[in-house]
Amino acid sequence: MRFTSATSSDGVREQLFTLGEIPGVLWTPDVGTGTRPLILLGHGGGRHKKDPGLVSLAHRLVTECGFAVVAVDVPAHGDRPREEEYDRIVAANQARAAAGEDLAALIAGFQALVARRTVPEWRAVLDAVQEIEHVGAGPVGYWGVSLGCGLGVPFVAAEPRVRAAVLGLGGAPALAEAARRITVPVEFLVQWDDERVPREESLALFDALASAEKTLHAHPGGHGDVPALELDSTLRFFARHLG
Amino acid sequence: MRFTSATSSDGVREQLFTLGEIPGVLWTPDVGTGTRPLILLGHGGGRHKKDPGLVSLAHRLVTECGFAVVAVDVPAHGDRPREEEYDRIVAANQARAAAGEDLAALIAGFQALVARRTVPEWRAVLDAVQEIEHVGAGPVGYWGVSLGCGLGVPFVAAEPRVRAAVLGLGGAPALAEAARRITVPVEFLVQWDDERVPREESLALFDALASAEKTLHAHPGGHGDVPALELDSTLRFFARHLG
Repeated sequence: MRFTSATSSDGVREQLFTLGEIPGVLWTPDVGTGTRPLILLGHGGGRHKKDPGLVSLAHRLVTECGFAVVAVDVPAHGDRPREEEYDRIVAANQARAAAGEDLAALIAGFQALVARRTVPEWRAVLDAVQEIEHVGAGPVGYWGVSLGCGLGVPFVAAEPRVRAAVLGLGGAPALAEAARRITVPVEFLVQWDDERVPREESLALFDALASAEKTLHAHPGGHGDVPALELDSTLRFFARHLG
Repeated sequence: MRFTSATSSDGVREQLFTLGEIPGVLWTPDVGTGTRPLILLGHGGGRHKKDPGLVSLAHRLVTECGFAVVAVDVPAHGDRPREEEYDRIVAANQARAAAGEDLAALIAGFQALVARRTVPEWRAVLDAVQEIEHVGAGPVGYWGVSLGCGLGVPFVAAEPRVRAAVLGLGGAPALAEAARRITVPVEFLVQWDDERVPREESLALFDALASAEKTLHAHPGGHGDVPALELDSTLRFFARHLG
């Protein structure tokens, strides 16, 4: 793990790093050392590790909860090179969707392909970040919606360090099998009029989670219209389960 | 309106009253006068105005938000006389349910019958309580689940003083028509494994609400298993919309 820059503002230290070929960013309180909870944020499709929504959530988790927060670029996103294989699949999927194939199923299939890389990458990121003195091996949380849910469900299912997760804007059937292996508390976000994820598939994914403690929060509006108020709920959720 | 007793504990003044034939209870801060938000609580089936769940919610609304809270007995509940007509219908419904008729539809039909009395009763209670100096004509909220939702949906639809409502554990189709006339913010509770309200009917009732701002909170478990944490959310919801 190699740190490439460090800045500080509003009580938050931001360190850019690379771990092998993975570019990442770590946010921590700019004072204090010792073990603390760590939240891994998964960004959305076409976004990257420093998407404004992620930066804003990370700052609140650091300043209001005292947590460490890490995000990395998914392959073919942010500072990572394009992947010819992914480009070919995306182009083929666009043609298949235009020809009438089910968009949600095509998206899900692609996310499953990407998850085969991101699950081991993210586990390696946890290994490395938890070695850092001002993070340590505390409890881990995961937050990710949309692509961050598509990649997050297999990750949370595979990684026992994750003790609580915020997921959503994603659907069964592609993720149902992995969801049935998730037993940690989950807060699950549904947009009632999601144009990308059919409502019944969202509800089926929530249903598939094996967690004894899970909450579904649904709001009217499309895929991108999650109300800002949900961030408050996310903070309370992680504070409750990891704090 | 006639007050029959007044007690005070933990900063909460509790006044029992009757309004015509309706027995009720009013909770307010035990100091201070002047206009304040008022929440009407609708109790569940077979319960009454001083059900422990209602008393606990009322105390928190008074002490944490400074609101006034009122609850009254539904006909044939609490301190009100039995209603032979209702007894006959309930007995007939039990026989019909035993013979295989849809329980949810029978419950819904009965609640619609009761609502024809409670809607005008509850409006009269608001009129009377808002005349009291330490309540006044501030914004009004409504909270009610189960029977409190069955009676609450037609009430909220009919009463323009209600500016925000917590509803749930109730379903379409019986309530859908009234729900389509509700436009105020709603927090709507669903129990994912509700043995009395089919899940799809709960979701259809949430869907029918015409409110631009509405949130569905779903949790695993049966009709009576709403987690205590939802009370915190209820308080935040009313504080946000009426405070």
